[in-house]
Amino acid sequence: MIHTGPRNLITDVPGLLVGQATDDRVRSGVTTLLFESPWVAAVDTRGGGPGLRETEALAAENLFGRAHAIVLAGGSVFGLAAADGVCAGLSARGVGVRLRAGSPAIPIVPTAVLHDLGNEGDKNWGLTPPYRALGLESLQNAATSFALGSVGAGTGAMSGLIKGGIGSASAALADQLIVGALAAVNCVGSALMPDGKTFWAWPFEIDGEFGGHGAPTAPIAILEPLPQESRLQALGRLQTGANTTLGVVGCNARLSNVECKRVAIMAQDGLARAVRPAHTPFDGDTVFAVAGGTLELPATEARAAQIARLGSAAADCLSRAIARAVHAAAS
Amino acid sequence: MIHTGPRNLITDVPGLLVGQATDDRVRSGVTTLLFESPWVAAVDTRGGGPGLRETEALAAENLFGRAHAIVLAGGSVFGLAAADGVCAGLSARGVGVRLRAGSPAIPIVPTAVLHDLGNEGDKNWGLTPPYRALGLESLQNAATSFALGSVGAGTGAMSGLIKGGIGSASAALADQLIVGALAAVNCVGSALMPDGKTFWAWPFEIDGEFGGHGAPTAPIAILEPLPQESRLQALGRLQTGANTTLGVVGCNARLSNVECKRVAIMAQDGLARAVRPAHTPFDGDTVFAVAGGTLELPATEARAAQIARLGSAAADCLSRAIARAVHAAAS
Repeated sequence: MIHTGPRNLITDVPGLLVGQATDDRVRSGVTTLLFESPWVAAVDTRGGGPGLRETEALAAENLFGRAHAIVLAGGSVFGLAAADGVCAGLSARGVGVRLRAGSPAIPIVPTAVLHDLGNEGDKNWGLTPPYRALGLESLQNAATSFALGSVGAGTGAMSGLIKGGIGSASAALADQLIVGALAAVNCVGSALMPDGKTFWAWPFEIDGEFGGHGAPTAPIAILEPLPQESRLQALGRLQTGANTTLGVVGCNARLSNVECKRVAIMAQDGLARAVRPAHTPFDGDTVFAVAGGTLELPATEARAAQIARLGSAAADCLSRAIARAVHAAAS
Repeated sequence: MIHTGPRNLITDVPGLLVGQATDDRVRSGVTTLLFESPWVAAVDTRGGGPGLRETEALAAENLFGRAHAIVLAGGSVFGLAAADGVCAGLSARGVGVRLRAGSPAIPIVPTAVLHDLGNEGDKNWGLTPPYRALGLESLQNAATSFALGSVGAGTGAMSGLIKGGIGSASAALADQLIVGALAAVNCVGSALMPDGKTFWAWPFEIDGEFGGHGAPTAPIAILEPLPQESRLQALGRLQTGANTTLGVVGCNARLSNVECKRVAIMAQDGLARAVRPAHTPFDGDTVFAVAGGTLELPATEARAAQIARLGSAAADCLSRAIARAVHAAAS
């Protein structure tokens, strides 16, 4: 039986903190996930317009495959600077790889951004976009509790034609496994079925965590593959890089980098189940999977079954986190 | 409003034929999709245990990016020989690339196999597995009508703990766009929700095409991320390459190879919505997208919106094809 963790947040995974910074004037912000040590991490990108930084450091064929923190930010390409603030802040604390005694600690901070430049916030920042400062502020706010909805990287986000935002969820499985997800939802697709009130993710809801509406109460008619196309067009959403769902899934097991990659691949299915359509040319859909725990999985064939369980649980958590983001943003 | 095409099969896409060959003694078979000319094609693999042939010929950075036929086969690695039969048969008809006058025509036949070696069929084929002959037979059977369920590549397939098989569906969209999907369902995950009777794909069903059960009639409790783990273990399903869902989606628009790739990526979401879990380490989940039509999409920014629509429609069709496979196999 699946239960949520005590907070129903990704911070139910021990050793993982989340900090956010919100600029209401700019209507944008940053959400940072901080790991107590460099956690094993992998990334999987399936959208047609990603905005990423330091993701190649996580590739299986490369050496490091770990992250000190992961940053999600609004601001499109300007938001990539949020990682500058986080890197400076972490290095000042001595967090990072130190290649030589006395040289600065080098934090590895994979980063993904979403586009919110089209909202009504003040973007007249000239040569000093706010994201570096917001990144540093988000790091300073890192804690086990954090807000959902229109906050952090989700401050100015949209989900189809309604508000998107930050969502999170967790699951406590058998065998002490804890899985969590965090989503920054800015998708061109809809998190709601065509009735406009049932979440696509409804089968995965636990304890009314996104409103408790449950299954649709009347027959659903799937009328269009790309709902509200003309209204999305009018809003400028049907452009490269204009939308994205960003996800991070984490667990307390000791996984390899390629096992994290499999979990990230499976977690993308949670995005697919929660948003329709997903992974379009206009989205930058990217999912990180991190593992920092000490829980040892079996080393035998049964290990792969545990990876499948983790990946499936991560997908469910990401579906729930996406629905919780939209639900919290609308509240 | 989405309607099915006249046959509700992938052969509603003009110029595409499907032929199947079934060996009831071996409990296996082959399903071949034949294109009237070398169609633009792309492939996307997301499972952890794929069995593929000639898929690199479809990669964007390579030259050809087209296929004369696509073969799906049972028989695991032995099934890859089905393409030998199809290649020989096509070349004998003069179908293929001819690099020099008088030299044999070279058909490009991307192929994906599923594992059905564990079923009760007679696999004592010694040095002559039946797949080459089945491939040739499937080609000879190519037609606009074909059977669903326990037939062709789906003859010995399983879907979780119940029978899998061959499914197909089509959709006629606005603007003369026709989209179709064919699935060979041999997944480790389940096509049914935990109540054991509601298809995960239920929101996408058209006109009772997979039984008309509709939405679940009682609350659904998601109890386990990997349902029936112990029973799947006992059946030997929790092994590398033991399972897979293979899909082909097609449309009548003129697309580029990379546009087909985006459609294939989006169509994987249809698999994710129809099967839980999907894309596990034990599945070889692979989706081909083909385009052979003459329908011209706009060349402007609106073109990408059409790709998104096509990809979303392809995902919906693949969800429906998967449910139809399981429904037909159980009938």
